[in-house]
Amino acid sequence: MDYEAFFTGELDSLRQEGRYRIFAELERRRGAFPRATHHIEGDLRDVTVWCSNDYLGMGQHPKVLGAMHETLDRCGAGAGGTRNISGTTHQHAQLEAELADLHGKEAALLFTSGYVSNWAALSTLAARLPDCVVLSDAGNHASMIEGIRHSRAECQVFAHNDWRDLDRRLTAIGPDRAKLVAFESVYSMDGDIAPIAEILDVCEAHGAMSYIDEVHAVGLYGPRGGGVAEREGLMDRITVIEGTLGKAYGVMGGYIAGSNAVCDFVRSFASGFIFTTALPPALAAGATASIRHLKDSNAEREAHRDRVATVRARLKAAGIPMLDNPSHIIPVMVGDPRHCKQISDWLLEHHAIYVQPINYPTVPRGTERLRITPSPVHSDGDIDRLVEALSECWSRCALSRVPAAA
Amino acid sequence: MDYEAFFTGELDSLRQEGRYRIFAELERRRGAFPRATHHIEGDLRDVTVWCSNDYLGMGQHPKVLGAMHETLDRCGAGAGGTRNISGTTHQHAQLEAELADLHGKEAALLFTSGYVSNWAALSTLAARLPDCVVLSDAGNHASMIEGIRHSRAECQVFAHNDWRDLDRRLTAIGPDRAKLVAFESVYSMDGDIAPIAEILDVCEAHGAMSYIDEVHAVGLYGPRGGGVAEREGLMDRITVIEGTLGKAYGVMGGYIAGSNAVCDFVRSFASGFIFTTALPPALAAGATASIRHLKDSNAEREAHRDRVATVRARLKAAGIPMLDNPSHIIPVMVGDPRHCKQISDWLLEHHAIYVQPINYPTVPRGTERLRITPSPVHSDGDIDRLVEALSECWSRCALSRVPAAA
Ligand SMILES: Cc1ncc(COP(=O)(O)O)c(C=O)c1O
Ligand SMILES: Cc1ncc(COP(=O)(O)O)c(C=O)c1O
Repeated sequence: MDYEAFFTGELDSLRQEGRYRIFAELERRRGAFPRATHHIEGDLRDVTVWCSNDYLGMGQHPKVLGAMHETLDRCGAGAGGTRNISGTTHQHAQLEAELADLHGKEAALLFTSGYVSNWAALSTLAARLPDCVVLSDAGNHASMIEGIRHSRAECQVFAHNDWRDLDRRLTAIGPDRAKLVAFESVYSMDGDIAPIAEILDVCEAHGAMSYIDEVHAVGLYGPRGGGVAEREGLMDRITVIEGTLGKAYGVMGGYIAGSNAVCDFVRSFASGFIFTTALPPALAAGATASIRHLKDSNAEREAHRDRVATVRARLKAAGIPMLDNPSHIIPVMVGDPRHCKQISDWLLEHHAIYVQPINYPTVPRGTERLRITPSPVHSDGDIDRLVEALSECWSRCALSRVPAAA
Repeated sequence: MDYEAFFTGELDSLRQEGRYRIFAELERRRGAFPRATHHIEGDLRDVTVWCSNDYLGMGQHPKVLGAMHETLDRCGAGAGGTRNISGTTHQHAQLEAELADLHGKEAALLFTSGYVSNWAALSTLAARLPDCVVLSDAGNHASMIEGIRHSRAECQVFAHNDWRDLDRRLTAIGPDRAKLVAFESVYSMDGDIAPIAEILDVCEAHGAMSYIDEVHAVGLYGPRGGGVAEREGLMDRITVIEGTLGKAYGVMGGYIAGSNAVCDFVRSFASGFIFTTALPPALAAGATASIRHLKDSNAEREAHRDRVATVRARLKAAGIPMLDNPSHIIPVMVGDPRHCKQISDWLLEHHAIYVQPINYPTVPRGTERLRITPSPVHSDGDIDRLVEALSECWSRCALSRVPAAA
């Protein structure tokens, strides 16, 4: 077996399908977000980033950076161990208490990332609950899918956001088996939001555990940033709420929040929690500062909503087609992988605007898009430049526009 | 199904078996390693940590902290995106180049942790190589086991460090199938070291890929800290070298190093690499500074070896039983879970010494131990206090000693 030839061949196939990814090398500039320096072929160029998931710009917030600097100086760089062997610090304990409070739960459990929290929690729950069947929304994120797959429990995929389909399936499964319903609040590529109340009604009617991924919602929705479930007053009806510290909170890490028993169970049995070095205390402290700030301050959320509404209105006026949704994510639909890449390249080269093209397999073929994420750090001038540049691209590529009445 | 009752019941079983884990809450003190503050029931107490995997104390090195402070100020806290969508920064690119150079490989690929690097790389390689069979050392770490399991490829476990068993198995498998041999260099609980050259001879004879976990060796062995394989001049014969940035390098993160093709393949197909927020640039910069320093400086490695030898000699003189091994890890054998926990509690309470007890399932029953990790930050006085305290415990628990002649 010629391994090198195999790898090279697979990579060539990706290239032929236009799916080979080249990463843009950036340097964000603290104090100047959304500006970044683009390193390209030895050159340095200024760009405006329009596709960051640091949705509120908290990654440059003085409270976050202050807490991180201070903790670095006080405790050093890494945690130096797994949570069990010298790696649990005061900062981890504080952050877990803060997260439990954020979601009105008894406890929370920290992981090295949102990916690991989904993978480790779902695989542990589904594998260890006796004869468990998992009901997984068709739109679920890779981290949830892999976690469920890893458990080897039976998994049924229900139609996206379709609580009636979920209800039918739970009825067919019957009352005797353990049931775990896994879904998201805000789906990151379409920006649609789950009918959480209806899904919870169904879960409760059938005695199923509910597990919600609020990765694209925590910090952004709800009066204290607890997510869509907080906004809708539903947090106490959900068994496990999962979130990330790497998007709206601007740092890194993931977590689950729930009862003492469920968190302690995952803590005690999840390989992906146990056998890995804990997050650096400085990250834990930065995340805690970010959560605390966004519990008290609505200014960032209001500015965020305002920027999103402005971008949407301006794109609409220019006839640029978007997926309609009730969230902060603006998917500008191109519908062709080559055009999508071309537009992204053109924006970067001629307008110093960086929006990564989103192609298959991240989204279905024919729905290739530019996923635009406005944030409080984007000015009116930034928005003007984005809309004019996109409008120019639409003309150049002769892409169809949406009539103004639509 | 009463989920809460199920979780509580499982936790009770752990408690009854003496396997329920309570994490010690610490605050390491930068500049004062190995000293830390122990938070316990509202009290703060000074302790000396003897079980950190920040083996060289790099977590408080001024170059590491300087790079982190500087990058925090320049680029902010988090990366703000996955590697593909705005999350690749100049710091990531630099770190990957540094890692490739460290191991004399064409390329390296960064992950959020060593756990994720093993899990994602092994699951991707084993799942995608056609009809692949994995040969996995019986002592392999959970992250490798879970990655292999996730791939659903056939897996054969070969006897620990037994290249003859490996050879027999590869012979039986025959030349036609893709074969991946996964093992570690330094095994973290026993501190033994694999016969790397012999294993590579066998891999080469059978046309198998080799994958080595050098998590407990990078930074510590080899003239530039490239690990045991560097020390033995074997790096170029290994297909994939995996390591962590969270132990000897004192920060957080994981990686693989190998050919351009193998790294690009994992980069392009591994879910656990693709669908997660990238490491914060400050962590990447801190890790780069740490690696660079340890490429040039042998002082930390020499001091480390000296401390390890001193602790070993002193424990030997006191008749405290240790697992003999050629590495930096000193497993002090207790052989009983209750005694092991008691000694650890006693050390903490009466001597302000923190060594986490290591019980089943981390190690086999009957081999319960205190895993002691000396480092350059431990003084002669620290060593005196450790040995005296352990000696006192041995007397108190009437544990048998090793005769001086042994
Ligand atoms: C829905 C969803 N869940 C989980 C994750 C993983 O979170 P993290 O980036 O913290 O690993 C992501 C994206 O990265 C996501 O989009
Ligand atoms: C052998 C081995 N491999 C991998 C890991 C995981 O590395 P990390 O702590 O960076 O996740 C560990 C311990 O944590 C380990 O002991």
